[in-house]
Amino acid sequence: MRLTSQEARQRFGAARVARLATVSARGAPHLVPVTFALDGDRIYTAVDAKPKSTTDLARIRNLRACPRVAVLADRYDDDWSALWWARADGEASVISDPAAMADPIRLLAGRYRQYLASPPGGPVIAIRVDRWTGWSAS
Amino acid sequence: MRLTSQEARQRFGAARVARLATVSARGAPHLVPVTFALDGDRIYTAVDAKPKSTTDLARIRNLRACPRVAVLADRYDDDWSALWWARADGEASVISDPAAMADPIRLLAGRYRQYLASPPGGPVIAIRVDRWTGWSAS
Repeated sequence: MRLTSQEARQRFGAARVARLATVSARGAPHLVPVTFALDGDRIYTAVDAKPKSTTDLARIRNLRACPRVAVLADRYDDDWSALWWARADGEASVISDPAAMADPIRLLAGRYRQYLASPPGGPVIAIRVDRWTGWSAS
Repeated sequence: MRLTSQEARQRFGAARVARLATVSARGAPHLVPVTFALDGDRIYTAVDAKPKSTTDLARIRNLRACPRVAVLADRYDDDWSALWWARADGEASVISDPAAMADPIRLLAGRYRQYLASPPGGPVIAIRVDRWTGWSAS
């Protein structure tokens, strides 16, 4: 039922969407869905080129104040024998330098064709994962 | 694109799974998928009857230390025009009293047939939502 670190990382890496939890300076959790690319124990996600309100950028403000993050991929099915989840816990940093963003954005464009046509403007969030956990019903 | 509170609550309430973000006493985020039932501005989720390790109960420890939570429902599709998410921010409390758990568990059993056959042992987490936000690509 409990997944090994390797299994959790593998399932996470194959998922198309994950949810990023950050914590505000006041200690409140914040949660958004993210597209991502996994490279070893690094997760990259980008703020995309669509106009974003300040609310949407709460994730950036938060992880500048508190770099600990949790990122979750999961599968739901009404047949509960098909359920699983995989979680990455780690420390995030914000990459704003265009040269440093190039490799992560290339990885993201390799997974999501939309990013090939319209690369995310950034910044990029880079997460160094220090713990992989997961669970599968079967 | 941005959903009204009412639209966000409606989409959230129809989802089959959500992700619950809590914050530990040390200020680290924790994230798990949850089944849930929505009643007005209250979200109920239960720890189910399956044996749980202490790790799985981190959510309970956390919200006793820090009651602020965020809960997210979302839809991913490789066609990004189908994307949406809805988030509930609120304060959680833990219900352990069997009489007080009865109504929430009835709501949960109304949504998930598995809970009819095997009601969750609890405790129940009750979240009073004070903010609904959401976004839809179309």
